[in-house]
Amino acid sequence: MKESGRKLGALSPCAACKLLRRRCAQDCVFAPYFPADEPQKFASVHKVFGASNVNKMLQELPEHQRSDAVSSMVYEANARVRDPVYGCVGAISSLQRQIDSLQTQLALAQAEVVHMRVRQFTSSSNPGAMDMAVDQATMGESLWSC
Amino acid sequence: MKESGRKLGALSPCAACKLLRRRCAQDCVFAPYFPADEPQKFASVHKVFGASNVNKMLQELPEHQRSDAVSSMVYEANARVRDPVYGCVGAISSLQRQIDSLQTQLALAQAEVVHMRVRQFTSSSNPGAMDMAVDQATMGESLWSC
Repeated sequence: MKESGRKLGALSPCAACKLLRRRCAQDCVFAPYFPADEPQKFASVHKVFGASNVNKMLQELPEHQRSDAVSSMVYEANARVRDPVYGCVGAISSLQRQIDSLQTQLALAQAEVVHMRVRQFTSSSNPGAMDMAVDQATMGESLWSC
Repeated sequence: MKESGRKLGALSPCAACKLLRRRCAQDCVFAPYFPADEPQKFASVHKVFGASNVNKMLQELPEHQRSDAVSSMVYEANARVRDPVYGCVGAISSLQRQIDSLQTQLALAQAEVVHMRVRQFTSSSNPGAMDMAVDQATMGESLWSC
């Protein structure tokens, strides 16, 4: 697993050691996650977090979590390179606006269902029909069942 | 504006210079955004991005964008300190799951509206009623207007 970032049979340096111009040791913490043929991955995290911080963050994690940590750092770093002011916090704001919009559309659609149910039930003069219609549409039971 | 991070009348160092144990110069790039009474803000960005990278990122931005950049870096850094594996990418995944769930609920509610409209219109034997019902419920026009 540790050797996945290197060419077999040769100790060619990983992308991190290549950029940092240092010897890539057998137990290099970067090598499994920053292969030589993907230099941009390390360049981004180095520019945004700094090699020493990435090293420290990886060392503080158990090995089975390091790959996910590298992926999330690369994602964050690329977002910060693309948008130096907001980074991936820009994506969070945009997703939150989408959620607000979807919640509004959902509330409207659910209100419409309630409205149509109330009209449908009251036209049949069923006592207590309005409460039933509201309950059914808002309590999450199957809307197709009536 | 540049002096907002300092006490008037005294050149007390900003939180960044205090942590880095250096003289806080009159034109310190950190001082406006890292006041001495909020040491945790700089401690987080220093731990995650490194003081030198934060300095570089701020220097590369026009002054009117620096405050937003600091806020987003502090948010990102705090997220990474809380969750060293996923950082704020964890929040992005969670928001995307919420969006998927809301889209499913919205599609169900809209399908229910179409279903009720079709039933309502076809019971009145109006020619072309089904197409009209589907169009009205899915094209985003006011659902209350019919």
